Amino acid sequence: MEPAPPRRIGCVHLVGAGPGSPDLITVRGLNLLRNADVVVYDALVHPDLLAAARPDAERLYAGKRGYCVGSTLQETINDVLVNRARHGLAVVRLKGGDPCVFGRGGEEAEYLAGRGVPFEIVPGITTAVGACAAASIPLTHRDAGQAVALVTGHFDPDSPDCTLDWPGLTRMSCVVVYMGLRHVERICARLIENGLSPDTPAAVVAWATLPDQFVIDSPLSHIAA
Amino acid sequence: MEPAPPRRIGCVHLVGAGPGSPDLITVRGLNLLRNADVVVYDALVHPDLLAAARPDAERLYAGKRGYCVGSTLQETINDVLVNRARHGLAVVRLKGGDPCVFGRGGEEAEYLAGRGVPFEIVPGITTAVGACAAASIPLTHRDAGQAVALVTGHFDPDSPDCTLDWPGLTRMSCVVVYMGLRHVERICARLIENGLSPDTPAAVVAWATLPDQFVIDSPLSHIAA
Repeated sequence: MEPAPPRRIGCVHLVGAGPGSPDLITVRGLNLLRNADVVVYDALVHPDLLAAARPDAERLYAGKRGYCVGSTLQETINDVLVNRARHGLAVVRLKGGDPCVFGRGGEEAEYLAGRGVPFEIVPGITTAVGACAAASIPLTHRDAGQAVALVTGHFDPDSPDCTLDWPGLTRMSCVVVYMGLRHVERICARLIENGLSPDTPAAVVAWATLPDQFVIDSPLSHIAA
Repeated sequence: MEPAPPRRIGCVHLVGAGPGSPDLITVRGLNLLRNADVVVYDALVHPDLLAAARPDAERLYAGKRGYCVGSTLQETINDVLVNRARHGLAVVRLKGGDPCVFGRGGEEAEYLAGRGVPFEIVPGITTAVGACAAASIPLTHRDAGQAVALVTGHFDPDSPDCTLDWPGLTRMSCVVVYMGLRHVERICARLIENGLSPDTPAAVVAWATLPDQFVIDSPLSHIAA
């Protein structure tokens, strides 16, 4: 009797789901999702995308929503990815936005690489780009804009965990803050303290690209506290 | 005899084609392209995307390739978009990367808005995100990265046209330079002069996500001149 052929190790595709609306995933990402044996997905992924996977695909909720407490530990997610790939399965790790812009896809990729698991990063529309498109706010303009900063607003601006260089940010043409709602007033205040005019045009965008999207257009000083 | 109903004005969809590979367009972008009456496209758009449009769709080459001399004037492009929309046609303006990140989509949107032509911005994978995914270089990492800068390298760093704040850039976690090949040595030198370690990891990515993609991984000082 012939020995069983060695099982081929599966690939983990770290796929960006985009900013919210399910049709803002890439064509490549959707094709991979449709063919996946296993889909490991975050909280902010649209249900229509999960419905696009095969009915018999294993769907695993990773429970991550920003950096919230109570989320599945990153180690568990990493182990699931490696385990399923070693069983020869095609795994899609579906993450909101882009996997590698404030998405911890880099850590997952590092972990896979360290264990010899093949992976591919499939980019997604990062939230800054998706939100600005949906709100018709161009990130750059010929007359104003040689530099855009994408920063995380997760850390309290008053805490030492926040390492943002405020004076440098005020000299960028445009600053986009991710996950910034909790600290938005103090972030805006900090930008004004460091030299931005209180009249600088600003906008708050929530639920970008989804039916519940709202946009508040307002001078920076009206948002600052 | 009934009067002819008023002709409905068409919509102009400013669609990001993504960083290069044709399957990195969004699902929404591809659907709009397939249904377009008119496609106005830039030099860097992949031929497979143009082939996805209807055989009878009008295809107009806008000839833009960065800021090269000899490109179709922006005014001509703007006029074509307005004219076709006023004839009730569905227009896709297909641009490399994202329309509004160093893509002049903002100007085209402004022009359309000023003439009462409805438009929609459909985001695309911007080159920074696409290139880093393809080169497996995460733009952010939990341990290193609260701020990413996207800057244009189009302007000579020694000329007054370049308004980049070099000291501020050296304090970002990651700096991505678009259209930077021509001035790459002096851009790297400027970052070192302003305080970045010569050993800072750096990479040059060309033809990102396409079969000809190449990546040079190298300390900053090896690229600087």
